Amino acid sequence: MPVVDKGWIRIDGQTITATGSGPAPAIDGAETIDCGGDIVMPGMVNPHCHMAMTLFRGLGEDVDDRLYRYVLPLERKFVTREMVRAGTALAAIELIQAGVTTVADMYYFETEVGRVVDQAGMRGVVGQTIADFDPPDHTDIDGGFALTEELAAEFAGHDRVTASIAPHAPYSTDIAVMNRVSRWADDHPDVPVQIHLAEMDSEMEWCAKHHGLRPVELVEKAGLLRPGLICAHCLHVNASDIEKMAHARVCVAHNARSNAKAGRGIAPVEAMRTAGIPVGVATDGPMSGNTLDLFSQFGPVSMFQKLAGHSRKPMPAVEVIRMATIEGARVLGMDARIGSLEPGKQADLVRIDLSAPRLQPIYDTYATLVFAAMPADVCDVMVAGRWLMRDREVLTLERRKVLRDALQVAAHFKAEMTRIDAAG
Amino acid sequence: MPVVDKGWIRIDGQTITATGSGPAPAIDGAETIDCGGDIVMPGMVNPHCHMAMTLFRGLGEDVDDRLYRYVLPLERKFVTREMVRAGTALAAIELIQAGVTTVADMYYFETEVGRVVDQAGMRGVVGQTIADFDPPDHTDIDGGFALTEELAAEFAGHDRVTASIAPHAPYSTDIAVMNRVSRWADDHPDVPVQIHLAEMDSEMEWCAKHHGLRPVELVEKAGLLRPGLICAHCLHVNASDIEKMAHARVCVAHNARSNAKAGRGIAPVEAMRTAGIPVGVATDGPMSGNTLDLFSQFGPVSMFQKLAGHSRKPMPAVEVIRMATIEGARVLGMDARIGSLEPGKQADLVRIDLSAPRLQPIYDTYATLVFAAMPADVCDVMVAGRWLMRDREVLTLERRKVLRDALQVAAHFKAEMTRIDAAG
Repeated sequence: MPVVDKGWIRIDGQTITATGSGPAPAIDGAETIDCGGDIVMPGMVNPHCHMAMTLFRGLGEDVDDRLYRYVLPLERKFVTREMVRAGTALAAIELIQAGVTTVADMYYFETEVGRVVDQAGMRGVVGQTIADFDPPDHTDIDGGFALTEELAAEFAGHDRVTASIAPHAPYSTDIAVMNRVSRWADDHPDVPVQIHLAEMDSEMEWCAKHHGLRPVELVEKAGLLRPGLICAHCLHVNASDIEKMAHARVCVAHNARSNAKAGRGIAPVEAMRTAGIPVGVATDGPMSGNTLDLFSQFGPVSMFQKLAGHSRKPMPAVEVIRMATIEGARVLGMDARIGSLEPGKQADLVRIDLSAPRLQPIYDTYATLVFAAMPADVCDVMVAGRWLMRDREVLTLERRKVLRDALQVAAHFKAEMTRIDAAG
Repeated sequence: MPVVDKGWIRIDGQTITATGSGPAPAIDGAETIDCGGDIVMPGMVNPHCHMAMTLFRGLGEDVDDRLYRYVLPLERKFVTREMVRAGTALAAIELIQAGVTTVADMYYFETEVGRVVDQAGMRGVVGQTIADFDPPDHTDIDGGFALTEELAAEFAGHDRVTASIAPHAPYSTDIAVMNRVSRWADDHPDVPVQIHLAEMDSEMEWCAKHHGLRPVELVEKAGLLRPGLICAHCLHVNASDIEKMAHARVCVAHNARSNAKAGRGIAPVEAMRTAGIPVGVATDGPMSGNTLDLFSQFGPVSMFQKLAGHSRKPMPAVEVIRMATIEGARVLGMDARIGSLEPGKQADLVRIDLSAPRLQPIYDTYATLVFAAMPADVCDVMVAGRWLMRDREVLTLERRKVLRDALQVAAHFKAEMTRIDAAG
């Protein structure tokens, strides 16, 4: 990943057709944009998110039993197609404003997520959750598959939105459902599979108690440890798990902040990458990590590996940016189309304004991006040759309407929380 | 630390004279500012910084021997009064733009730091470094004391700038110098003492090898473990050290990001606070932590204690904000004057604009501040009743001139690094 000084990029339609350095060749009739000394980088990839959960951001932050006290009751009562649209739109604005152009999502009524991502002009891998805990949008597993079929039909052949199937986790699907997902995926080779994996102590205990296995072993036994499987978290993976994962050619979405905020631990990112497993920088949902930008993750991603290794050496800045771009694209199986600024790739790019005093001086572009830059420094964002944001203004969604809709849902949440608290 | 909904604050001159909630009382001839639904909070306190080192931000980030290869030679060659002014001014802009109104600094030619802090309108505890490694501004310990005397004389009785004496660390001063500092401090009760303490493995080894003691024990033996001593880092402190520190009534500046980026470890903040030691949220110099705002530290400060405790419970958001305000003020011995919005306190306050979609919705003000807010959300900053920033525009320093001066020094650094690299 070389840093090109005074570089130029030629874009025709959706595609990057040439790059170079030095004076840009003049082209008749072409629009030329001078980016001054700003950084132009590939659009970032966030490979694990629950976009609609922006509506739960910071809710019950320090309440110990917030999941059972607030979140599940609120989800049961308020998760509708409208709510998913409202929360996803709020997330899309946040993502675009932070230079994230591609996102993998996993939630309910996922067709709505796909529609909002499409309207926002972003790229998305939108995963319909399937789970056995009576989630808001399906009462049985058949219902989950039916929603997935609808999703896959709606976005078949779509340029930017890829339908995905998302068995929730080993403990909430068990072997039979994971196996059924695997067979379904055999018949739908264009639909990636996402799963939460090896995230929690309680998951380790459940897998041990019910099957005498570790989560990775259970997924393997179910026949789901397959090429391209997008595994979120992978905190509790040992050397044997990592070997299995590498051999099966699965991919990992690393959620540093979410894992740490819950006090769960540090994923062995260095070991997984050394084994050849692609690892992307993800945020998890905003209820867990609060923000959806990758800049907030960069410090933790690097620092946690340095802490774990008791050395300054692990995870240098350039590797963090690699994970946030081309490696994240590989996690989603999209590295042939996006993730770098090369001829033939889609024109997904981000311009970083370097005028903030806190970014200066700059000795090392990667260090600036990883340890000093913030979402507010992203000024322009393009996906497939189309501007999604110019000069911090998102062009594809109506910011004020999106905020209004989101705050209306939040008001319902607050009223219900008051009711719950009053009931004791 | 209650959150007051629809609160008001009355300021007369430099001082907060009344606060309340509900409709603000009308006062003839007074200017009234409607902050809409924004957060107004106490100005933040950064109790450990090397401001002038902004000029080294990100320099040699992933170069293993950067300290000996680049930093020390560059400091020896380029640290002058002018360089200190340039770097400190760049830092002051960054701090003000991030809502930090009080900073404790520790560097060379510290009189210049005090002057820039004064000009910026901030509050500062400016510490003249004293060390035996032939630092850029003194060739022997007497020279270090002479600079400190000048500093103390220049800022005696100053409203906002407090002179401080800063023996560098146990290994770079040893017992004799620390003891001399302690006696000097007895004669200068208004001059706080700062020291780097229990930061590094090599420091532990040095203290063990030369004295058979731990760093805290060595400082105690030198007579320097005294009330109000501002100890930066304190990573390597055990239960016995913590007991000594609490008994001696010292204070701690916690540098979460700096300690983690170097792979050094996680300071036992919970244990120190439980023992009654005030702990503030600090950044260290921008060569170590890259940014000087406290928002970049909030996530790490909270997450590291949660990781260390393997639980979501430690260090809730409200405690992080307490550390960043009133407890940070206590670390600097200034809690009677600043750190909270109460009648009689100095009017040091910060307004946080909540219009960014990534901040919404808000269920918990402290969670918003700790896990979602960023420097770009700070819109207005006041110190002692005077605006230092309005609508993101710093009013006390010339932004463009400051940047120009800083980049000029950085150009010299780059040329010298090229020379060093060419020499092999």
